[in-house]
Formats: sequence, C-alpha cells, structure tokens
Amino acid sequence: MSDNRIFNFNAGPAALPLPVLKEIKESFLNYQGSGMSVVEISHRSKHFDDIINDAVARTKRLLNLDDKFKVIFVQGGASMQFCMIPGNFLGQGDTADYVNTGTWSTKAIKEAEIQGKQINIVASSEHNNFSYIPSEIRFTKGASYVHITSNNTIKGTQWADFPDTNGVPIVADMSSDIMSRPLDVNKFGLIYAGAQKNIGPAGVCMVIIREDMLELLPDNKLPSMLKYSTYVSKNSMYNTPPCFAVYTIHLVLKWLEETIGGLAKMEQINRKKGKILYSLFDSGKFYSGTAALDSRSLMNVTFRLPTEELEKTFIQEALENGFGGLKGHRSVGGCRASIYNATSEEAVEALADFMKAFELKHS
Amino acid sequence: MSDNRIFNFNAGPAALPLPVLKEIKESFLNYQGSGMSVVEISHRSKHFDDIINDAVARTKRLLNLDDKFKVIFVQGGASMQFCMIPGNFLGQGDTADYVNTGTWSTKAIKEAEIQGKQINIVASSEHNNFSYIPSEIRFTKGASYVHITSNNTIKGTQWADFPDTNGVPIVADMSSDIMSRPLDVNKFGLIYAGAQKNIGPAGVCMVIIREDMLELLPDNKLPSMLKYSTYVSKNSMYNTPPCFAVYTIHLVLKWLEETIGGLAKMEQINRKKGKILYSLFDSGKFYSGTAALDSRSLMNVTFRLPTEELEKTFIQEALENGFGGLKGHRSVGGCRASIYNATSEEAVEALADFMKAFELKHS
Repeated sequence: MSDNRIFNFNAGPAALPLPVLKEIKESFLNYQGSGMSVVEISHRSKHFDDIINDAVARTKRLLNLDDKFKVIFVQGGASMQFCMIPGNFLGQGDTADYVNTGTWSTKAIKEAEIQGKQINIVASSEHNNFSYIPSEIRFTKGASYVHITSNNTIKGTQWADFPDTNGVPIVADMSSDIMSRPLDVNKFGLIYAGAQKNIGPAGVCMVIIREDMLELLPDNKLPSMLKYSTYVSKNSMYNTPPCFAVYTIHLVLKWLEETIGGLAKMEQINRKKGKILYSLFDSGKFYSGTAALDSRSLMNVTFRLPTEELEKTFIQEALENGFGGLKGHRSVGGCRASIYNATSEEAVEALADFMKAFELKHS
Repeated sequence: MSDNRIFNFNAGPAALPLPVLKEIKESFLNYQGSGMSVVEISHRSKHFDDIINDAVARTKRLLNLDDKFKVIFVQGGASMQFCMIPGNFLGQGDTADYVNTGTWSTKAIKEAEIQGKQINIVASSEHNNFSYIPSEIRFTKGASYVHITSNNTIKGTQWADFPDTNGVPIVADMSSDIMSRPLDVNKFGLIYAGAQKNIGPAGVCMVIIREDMLELLPDNKLPSMLKYSTYVSKNSMYNTPPCFAVYTIHLVLKWLEETIGGLAKMEQINRKKGKILYSLFDSGKFYSGTAALDSRSLMNVTFRLPTEELEKTFIQEALENGFGGLKGHRSVGGCRASIYNATSEEAVEALADFMKAFELKHS
C-alpha cells in the first residue's frame, strides 16, 4: 500500500477509507478557502452547517429514512446511550425488553438497572458463551422498547434478520455494523452507533430516532445534555458538537454514496469479504470459527488456531507481514479480523493468502 | 500568513497553533510508523497510551499539580459538566454555592436545579448586564463546593484573582482561559475546560479533580458514564475516548511547554496582547470596551463602535482584510476579538493596526 500503510484489521477505532484520510490531510490547514483548519472554524458558521446538514442528508438517503426519523450526533459513545435510552424512555411502571448477546448488551442492561428501571432479559446466549444470536424470542406485550445489539464485535456474531416484535419498537446498538447493509428501518424506534468502527473516528455517536419516541420521555429530572429532545430541537448544536468527528462522518458517508454506490453495493462487497475468510474455516481444520454458522458476523471474524502458542505466532508473523489488529479482544483471546466497510477486498484477500501460507507452514 | 490562512479571532472552536496543525497534517496517513492514521489506531495500543499519558503528564507539569489531582478527559463539553458536577457532589441535604457571571454560569445553575439539587446563588452581576466580576462574596459555610466561571467568553470578563472561600473547594469552568496563566490550584476541588478554546478541538472536556472530591459521591443511581470515578479509575478509557481530540491536546500542551516555555511565559504574552487592544479603548472614544476595567478578560475582548451600522461595516471590512471571527456573540451583538493562547502577538498587532485605520477612516 502507499505511504507504508498496513492492512488494518482493528476492531475499533478502525480503518477509515484512504480517500477520506487523504482529503482530510489535503485540506487540513485551509478548509474550503476559509483560511482556517476545519478544527478552527465556528460550529455556528455556514461551513459547519453545510457539513452537519450533509451528514444528516446522506444518512437519510443511505438508510432510506423518511422525515419521522431524526439524525443526531451525541458525545460519549455507545456507552452514554446505554444510560440515555432507559433514562429517556422508561418512566414509573414502564418496562423494556433486552436481548443479551454479549459484552455490550450486558453493559446496556447494567446501565438500565443502575437507574432502577424495570427491564426484562427476554433472551440470552450467555450459557453458550454468546456464540449465537437467539431466535424465537417471546417479547413482552406493552414494553416500551426491545433493546438488541445488532453485531457483537467481541464474539463475532450478528443478527442476520431482525425479529418481529409485535410492533414494539426496536432500539438497536449498531455501533459495529451500521451502514454495512441496507436496513428496513420501520421496525426501529432508535438506532445508535459509536462512529469508530464503520463511519468515522472515535468521539461521536450517531443516533437515529423516530419522532414518536421523543414523546415517551417521563416527567423526570433529566439534565439537558441527556435528553434526546435537546439534540433534535437544536440540530445537535445545543452546545459545541464534536466538529472534527462529524466532519469525518460526512466524508465517509460521501465515499459510501459516491464511490461505493450505496448500501446494497456495500453489502455485496462485505459478503464477498466475509466469504473469503469463513471459507478458510469451512474447508479445513486449522482455523476454527467461534460463532455459530447462522450467526456469523460479516464485520468481525473471530477464530481460533489449534493452540494458543500458534495463535501468538500467527499474530506476530501477521504483524511482521503488514497485517495489524488480529488479536482477539483481551476478554476472550484467540484471533479476530475486523473487516468493516473501509477494509478493502484487496486487504482481505491478502490476509487469506497469508493465512493459507501460515497453515501450510505450521500444520 | 502561509497557506492563505486568515487571522482567526473566533470565540471557539478557535485558532490552534500552526505548528500543531502542521504536525497533524504531516503524520495523518501514518502515525509514527504505525502504518495507520492516528484516527485508526486502537485506544488500547501503546501508541495511544503514550498520547494520553503525555497529555496528562504535561497538564500536571504546566499547572504544577501534585498527585492528589487527577486529570481525565470526558465527552460532552462543559455542558455535560454542568450536570455531572451536582450529580456527583450533592447528595440529600448538601448544598453548593454558585456565582453567576454570565450565560455559562446561568446554564450551570439551571442544570443543578433541574436535578432538584439545593444550591445558593451567592453573587451575581446580572443586574449590570454581567459586565463585572463580583467581589466580597459571602460564601455558605459547609457548602460542598463553590462554582464559578473563570472567564466569560460572551461578556468579556475574567476573574483576576480567585476568592478566599474559607476552605470550601472551588469548582471552576475554565473552558476559555485554562492554561492561559499560572494557577494556584490549592483552592480548587475541580477544574473543567471544554477544549475548543485554549487547548484543542471541540469534542473533549479536560477535567482536573482533587481525589477527595471523589468521596463526595452520594449513594445514588448515577450511570457509569456520569461518574467521575469511572474516568479516574480507567485513565479516561472506560470506553473509547475521543482519541483525535486527546491527541491534539497532547500536541498543544507540548507546544505550550516546549515552544512557548510554560504558563508564566504564556501569561506575559497574553498580557501584552490584551494591552494592545484595550489601550485602543482607553486612548480614544471610537471603540468602547463593555467590561468593567478590573474585570477585563485577556481572552475575549468585547467592544462596541459608535453605531450598529459601523459595527457591521467593521466586521465586514475586517473579514475582507483577513481578520475573521470578530462578530460578538449572537445573544449580545457588538464586536469581540477572542485572543486565546494560539492567537499570536503578530495577529493582535495586525488587528490593532486595522482598527486604527478603520477609526481614522470613519470618525
């Protein structure tokens, strides 16, 4: 690759499209003739208005959102959403369903419980090491929402389809697979995504909220910065937004629309990339996937080698050959290749070639 | 200036040191031989550890902080601190004092009240359009803290000295003057600063907290992301931090230490810059400052011209001559030159020359 860049399989913060990085670099001292860096312009300027409005408009086009959906940018990552969601939607006597599919779902559940909210864990794959996505779930009638994690970065599982919840709005943490495939948004009341995997740098969370959800806010003592309505009513600029992160998202979405050609195209590419790696597990015994077949993630491919010793050697040799970020999450070990939107087919093919050669050498 | 850059007098986001911007640009596709952009590296990597630890170490050196002070980075800007401070420090029966010196103090007060906390407004300059910093304040004995805003960007006032509070810890919003002068930290229990004025880009708030303040946390239902202890115990990495913003802060602090030579030097420069502009008000009648003499800010110089018509012309002609950001805050009108650390003497002198010429032409 150019500029001595490696093939980056980090789980997040993760690879960003090279054309986006180049554009940021090129204009960094003087943004569009303003005579200022993009990090020096006022968030109340026409320049920044254009940036944030473009990011919102592209999100709506890419995901086919009609006007009842609002797109906002919130700081604090997905972890802040874990607390804002129950805080905004659950009043006295309200309940919500949670599906537990891994570390991040577990944290979302914990933050609802800390606030003393009434929630039901309606399904969990914890007993099987979170290796699969539960199906045939019985949702609670009258629940305010159903919370799911659409893709589980640590365990390498992903919801292939979204469940029928009898009209209860789904609230989904899509941090690690937003914009990776087309979406039928009609099932969703709220979608949130920490940017640092598929759409931008760390430091901003995209939130898509259906306007009727804003009416659920219980009469409580929520501070302004924790209320979704604050962000919706001020186009995410009640206070200074994380300008650089929003700017980068706007460029990534532009790349998605104009270079990739939209989410259907993106999904095709992601399916091809996933197949290249998963076929290595299915055709031999050296690499074994950790996720159940029907729950395999197209974003995070988790796998083991015959021994932990070999895993260490694999990660080390990979790094020496220009493949970074292949170590599994520190909580589970093993190996993981995160292949988000910005990871090219070229990178995945190169990795597969390396893996085949490594297998030959060590088996 | 090089790269067709303007003289930037924005109130925030604001000018950053040009050497910092250049370093970011140069290394943007490949950070220190990692083969990745700084926005693509993992926050759990050695590279990022070095960045955040350096930012903390430089903060401690610059402000002369001993080990009882912890330096953390929190998302959500100063506005999030308005809610976190009473949430973390005021339990049942506790009270805090607030001094109201302008828009931001007023918002801090509002966010404490929303949460039903017991606070006392012990002084306010609202009756005089917030044009001065109150003195001889009677603080409440036994209050958990005294909240002040050290510099008021909109009204152009600044605390010249900090009050004696009889041992009650001061909690200060220093968003717009942190690192602009040396500080006797012993009076402070907590200092916070949205980065986008003096130390970095938008998207991160630096918080300096004295460890005994962590013990004030009432037994309540605060979510993890709203508790200071979460950030202190995890070196600001309970979840993914705003990496790019922290990285930029680290570079700005490096510039402050190594190029400027520390805060005493920085204060000298800032005093010189302020004098250049304020002397224009004192020597003539064309420009009039809006802040009381003893409360003048060295960061935001607010002033009026003889008529609103002339103010419009002034702002327009200034822009055409390469001076940006001179419009007063939309809530008050008039003119404002924000001259934070990164605004050079050269820029301020050039502005003063322009102002003199404008005065000659229009009076």
